[in-house]
Amino acid sequence: MSQAPAPTVTAAALAIGDELLSGRTKDKNIGHLAELLTAAGIDLEEVRIVPDEQPRIVEALNALRSRYDYVFTSGGIGPTHDDITADAVASAFGVACTHDSKALELLGAHYAERGMEFTEARRRMARMPVGATHIDNPVSRAPGFIIGNVHVMAGVPSVFQAMLDNVLPTLKSGAKVYSDNVDCPYGEGDIGGPLTAVAKAHPDVNIGSYPRFSGKKFSTEIVIRSRNQDAIAAAKRDVEAMLTSVGSKMGAAAV
Amino acid sequence: MSQAPAPTVTAAALAIGDELLSGRTKDKNIGHLAELLTAAGIDLEEVRIVPDEQPRIVEALNALRSRYDYVFTSGGIGPTHDDITADAVASAFGVACTHDSKALELLGAHYAERGMEFTEARRRMARMPVGATHIDNPVSRAPGFIIGNVHVMAGVPSVFQAMLDNVLPTLKSGAKVYSDNVDCPYGEGDIGGPLTAVAKAHPDVNIGSYPRFSGKKFSTEIVIRSRNQDAIAAAKRDVEAMLTSVGSKMGAAAV
Repeated sequence: MSQAPAPTVTAAALAIGDELLSGRTKDKNIGHLAELLTAAGIDLEEVRIVPDEQPRIVEALNALRSRYDYVFTSGGIGPTHDDITADAVASAFGVACTHDSKALELLGAHYAERGMEFTEARRRMARMPVGATHIDNPVSRAPGFIIGNVHVMAGVPSVFQAMLDNVLPTLKSGAKVYSDNVDCPYGEGDIGGPLTAVAKAHPDVNIGSYPRFSGKKFSTEIVIRSRNQDAIAAAKRDVEAMLTSVGSKMGAAAV
Repeated sequence: MSQAPAPTVTAAALAIGDELLSGRTKDKNIGHLAELLTAAGIDLEEVRIVPDEQPRIVEALNALRSRYDYVFTSGGIGPTHDDITADAVASAFGVACTHDSKALELLGAHYAERGMEFTEARRRMARMPVGATHIDNPVSRAPGFIIGNVHVMAGVPSVFQAMLDNVLPTLKSGAKVYSDNVDCPYGEGDIGGPLTAVAKAHPDVNIGSYPRFSGKKFSTEIVIRSRNQDAIAAAKRDVEAMLTSVGSKMGAAAV
């Protein structure tokens, strides 16, 4: 840790909702979060999906928030009885969950402007753990919130994305991870051995190998990742040389 | 547990792969698994995504396999150096990971038929924990495997789906969970209070409320789930009556 040349910043995602586990809703937030964190140099290291049950949310949240620099949650902050994320987060932090006065004011004005009743259900969306700060919601106003290293955001993708856009500039970001791809026309079975050798020769990069299946034939996308761009370039040269050698051995046109 | 009228069967999913956490690949297996398990009456209760790192896979797998009836993994069983799932699963079970003779035979014949070299990398795909049984792979032949309550499947969605089709008929299934939907033209803020009352009056069903945002206006899908169809019908009548009442209170046409 103390000798690492570039700071690494780690994160976990916790998606909350029965609908994700029943298959009714296909999650769209995890992949989006993963992409944006990677671009910001933050390493997403774990994801969990749990149901709308307070003990399960509390357990997962406490496991993740103690382990990673940041935790991002999605889901369960709406106005209905199955929206229990604010209570669960408060419980995980051992603080009360109350109606936040600033959020009540914000939401009261929002609904008044629209001539809509500020119902008890809508007032629920102003509840958050004591000490939390707001994440602005430009889409539908009801704020997300931050407590400790936990960022609590909505499950509706358009709202999640807008909240994340507001959160990202506030995060400490790690050294950016760069990546480069090599498109390989051969299956992993043809390149696995020599690719292992290249990976071993370049311990300062991470080489991922991703099979694609056209329905008839496998090909491979090789992704080289590192915080050091020179190291990526060196590894890429060796990957390309390896593919040329595999290609001529297979009697195919060299890549 | 002993008094439950209907058996519940629980499951967890463990998706393995750096590419899911970097955002490079958007997972397609979790939602598919969730849908098919729900249809089979099996409750998916937790999902985790972890990187291609053995200690992380072992830790997650041991946490999940002790807690749920079944665990389904995806990813990391291909032929390259970053495919370490078989080793990690063997380590979690405290058994050796070796070349399975039946798998070697199967794969040897498969590549011989196609005039393809049975490389060391391809031989890697015959490795599995000692004592594991095969999950047939009709797409690309290299089998998944079952050890204890853990089903280890491929990450490529077409292969994952084919393996799951082979696994599902072998699982004990729980009593089927039925569901019915009510399309609600009002936002959750308008119905949250009265819906809570309906949910409290029907403790034998699970009522989920899912906001939809058109870009201008929220509406809500209300999903009622239970293993008891009569209970769903009764709750649905009360939800519909509640919506009529909310609608007339709002001065809108009754639903």
